Amino acid sequence: MKIIHEIIKVSSTGMRPVFHKVTDEVRKFVAGSGIQNGICVVYSRHTTCAVIIDEDSFDMTYTGRTYLQQDFTDIFENIIPTCRKEGQYMHPGPILTEFSAEHGEDKPGTLNTDAHLRSSILGRSETIPIINGSLELGEFGHIYFVDFDHTRPRERCVTVQLMGQ
Amino acid sequence: MKIIHEIIKVSSTGMRPVFHKVTDEVRKFVAGSGIQNGICVVYSRHTTCAVIIDEDSFDMTYTGRTYLQQDFTDIFENIIPTCRKEGQYMHPGPILTEFSAEHGEDKPGTLNTDAHLRSSILGRSETIPIINGSLELGEFGHIYFVDFDHTRPRERCVTVQLMGQ
Amino acid sequence: MKIIHEIIKVSSTGMRPVFHKVTDEVRKFVAGSGIQNGICVVYSRHTTCAVIIDEDSFDMTYTGRTYLQQDFTDIFENIIPTCRKEGQYMHPGPILTEFSAEHGEDKPGTLNTDAHLRSSILGRSETIPIINGSLELGEFGHIYFVDFDHTRPRERCVTVQLMGQ
Repeated sequence: MKIIHEIIKVSSTGMRPVFHKVTDEVRKFVAGSGIQNGICVVYSRHTTCAVIIDEDSFDMTYTGRTYLQQDFTDIFENIIPTCRKEGQYMHPGPILTEFSAEHGEDKPGTLNTDAHLRSSILGRSETIPIINGSLELGEFGHIYFVDFDHTRPRERCVTVQLMGQ
Repeated sequence: MKIIHEIIKVSSTGMRPVFHKVTDEVRKFVAGSGIQNGICVVYSRHTTCAVIIDEDSFDMTYTGRTYLQQDFTDIFENIIPTCRKEGQYMHPGPILTEFSAEHGEDKPGTLNTDAHLRSSILGRSETIPIINGSLELGEFGHIYFVDFDHTRPRERCVTVQLMGQ
Repeated sequence: MKIIHEIIKVSSTGMRPVFHKVTDEVRKFVAGSGIQNGICVVYSRHTTCAVIIDEDSFDMTYTGRTYLQQDFTDIFENIIPTCRKEGQYMHPGPILTEFSAEHGEDKPGTLNTDAHLRSSILGRSETIPIINGSLELGEFGHIYFVDFDHTRPRERCVTVQLMGQ
């Protein structure tokens, strides 16, 4: 039984949800692992990010998203609007704001309530079977690491863990 | 350590979201595997389908759904309305439409934006512990493979993978 | 390869969604297992509960929730309103109501349609990598078992399963 992991580093611009396509990196990691059958867990340890699988829809918006990513963002804007000011949601409250300041986060940086909520609804990971040496993504599936935190640019870690033989 | 998989084939009618109950097939696969402890991953490699777990709610609608499945469908109709025409969502765009045509998909077949979005929000799989030879579904839990693509009838593959000993 | 599980018992008050923080119990179970690398599946076998990961947001509401949990609840109240009476959703129908009565559940106890729907949208589990003996939760991540069933107090089981070496 082989259990190995890899961290893929990505840079988010802030300002809006950012989609990082990590399909190629993950496929390469699986191929190099020698694992024929098992699972691949693609995971976010950041509480304002998520992992999804979807098609690449080719057409691109002015802000560099595929049309499907833009539709995805629009749906989330409807159900969990972007946090623009304190008081729009209950979070961030006064204690959290103070806690964040102590950890080097300024007040605007705490206005990521929407990102926390979106991340917890989507879930933190996707588990993909590895079958006969191949990631079971289908013909058109891609893995996206989505960073919903719009408050500032950030360096993020995508955790990829393989278990199998 | 045993790692085995099975593909369950199901046929979707199109026209509306279709729920395929696969509990019995999955239970049988687990029982026949001899695995006492481990995990069972029920996974969709189709980007317009998802896997959920819920109760069977017995009462049936005119279109052959349980009441709970109808309520589930109604919620998704509210938050991600069925795509009825081009321009309702950004996807499908012109490049995707051309790409799809090259892969044998006609224009109406690309109007499955809602299905992509619903699938990525729900996630592509459920991971169910196997404990003492039994799938940890509780007394009333059932596994449903949901096909959201309403554009035409389709043959689908439900991937079931077991890891354990 | 070690495959072990633990059941964490929690008590829900009913009346509203209840969040059970189980981070410490899960961390302790992982630490005591001796597993250095593998996965931790935190799973609900109840069809009206779910598992999420999010930050602790410190500030507390009058009903004992963190502000972030309250915001989370408010979002779900918008998209899947609390079921207050029969007929609001299709479920519970007459056959389900009779089935429930035979299993000791009274009529008010069947008004948990919202809880079923919320649970299936969120998914039944979170899979967290274990890397070098540590749960990959990040600095601020917490594991919450969420019981959406508001109809009455209940005892619940959180299933935690570890696979690794």
